[in-house]
Amino acid sequence: MGPSVYFYVTYVLCLCLGLLCVLFVSFWSSQWRGGFAWDGSALQFNWHPVLMVSGLVVLYGNAAVVYRIPFTWKQRKHTWKLVHAGFMLLALFLSVLGLCAVFDFHRGFHIPDLYSLHSWLGICTVVMFAFQWGLGLAGFLFPCSPSWFRSTLKPVHIWIGKAVLILSLTSCISGITEKLLLTLNGATGELYNSLPLEAKFVNSLGVLIMVFGLVVSVILSKNKWERPQTDNENTHVSHNESSCDCQ
Amino acid sequence: MGPSVYFYVTYVLCLCLGLLCVLFVSFWSSQWRGGFAWDGSALQFNWHPVLMVSGLVVLYGNAAVVYRIPFTWKQRKHTWKLVHAGFMLLALFLSVLGLCAVFDFHRGFHIPDLYSLHSWLGICTVVMFAFQWGLGLAGFLFPCSPSWFRSTLKPVHIWIGKAVLILSLTSCISGITEKLLLTLNGATGELYNSLPLEAKFVNSLGVLIMVFGLVVSVILSKNKWERPQTDNENTHVSHNESSCDCQ
Repeated sequence: MGPSVYFYVTYVLCLCLGLLCVLFVSFWSSQWRGGFAWDGSALQFNWHPVLMVSGLVVLYGNAAVVYRIPFTWKQRKHTWKLVHAGFMLLALFLSVLGLCAVFDFHRGFHIPDLYSLHSWLGICTVVMFAFQWGLGLAGFLFPCSPSWFRSTLKPVHIWIGKAVLILSLTSCISGITEKLLLTLNGATGELYNSLPLEAKFVNSLGVLIMVFGLVVSVILSKNKWERPQTDNENTHVSHNESSCDCQ
Repeated sequence: MGPSVYFYVTYVLCLCLGLLCVLFVSFWSSQWRGGFAWDGSALQFNWHPVLMVSGLVVLYGNAAVVYRIPFTWKQRKHTWKLVHAGFMLLALFLSVLGLCAVFDFHRGFHIPDLYSLHSWLGICTVVMFAFQWGLGLAGFLFPCSPSWFRSTLKPVHIWIGKAVLILSLTSCISGITEKLLLTLNGATGELYNSLPLEAKFVNSLGVLIMVFGLVVSVILSKNKWERPQTDNENTHVSHNESSCDCQ
């Protein structure tokens, strides 16, 4: 098999795992936790795990790897920068909506915000993600950003991207742990440590999220799967620099 | 500042954060959770967070970056392979001891093993770490391992190493979340959501662990800080190959 076949096998695995994560978290909220609403009730909380897993993990992970898809390499990089930034903005929007869901729910039930380790890490993740998006926009999409800024920013952007992925995985896993411990409390006769069906299902969701995150990190770590630098792109950067000099 | 000064600043930060993690987790167990024993009581459980944070996170992270320390580059790589493998073996030993502590505690209190997402991920982490250690021994320390095996194994070894780090961070954060929710239950009048001093302190421990993990990942991600390949090492590999061919 050629390197691109290996890539596509891994990429399809990544897509399937992402889809499974979204299906599992949606099924958990609708089947065991009563479904969805946006009225400050417990049903509004149910949007929180669905939006965070879909936005901060699955969409984020997929947006991070778009440059690695070989069929995009013959197309203009600028187009795929816009796709990358667009998907990331959607992921950020879903994450912020997920935070609104939990803050509204807390307000309705007079539960304090930001007391748990999960919430401390989760809020840091979303703030870091928003900062990273703004920095990426300034560095790689504003036509006037100087080349020294782009070249300095690139390794920082890549590293912050990986850090946000690690933080989002940690936030999701600790959030799932917190929710299971707060809901499977014996009120329905189903203790978490008796491993009822919901616990088995949601533990499996946690494992799926981790496997998805690790597959994304495999794709990002392989140098062979990096988009090759073309002369055209270098010319494009030079053109941007010269056009900025003229302004 | 030269690149090695940047490295040493980051490395000292890594050492300080690691030390703080060990001090914080030990202080938590001794100050708020009653101290230590090895008698199947709740005090035996207290070894679990201390051993896992010290072994699976702090020692593991420090062992992962030893090759990056510039003063080691003029010394034989084989010596530092032994240091790396030795620290990793100690980290693995502490982790297994940490698992024994929690299994013994569970047995004493008739609590089922391996029901939570934390325990599922934690056991996967330690198994993957043990597998990685065995594979590293076979590939890089056995003198007869063929060079094709070493060169194939190297990127896999590096990737599994990063995956174990991500898994160990996730396991520790979910474990801390689980312990706080199970202990700050209002029995002492201190609910987790009222953020008593213990909760603030242990949440800070969680943040320290994450920052430590991210600093380790910075050190591992910088190509400039990689140990340079020398002719001597290549000769050493060739010598091993030829000596194996002779057997």
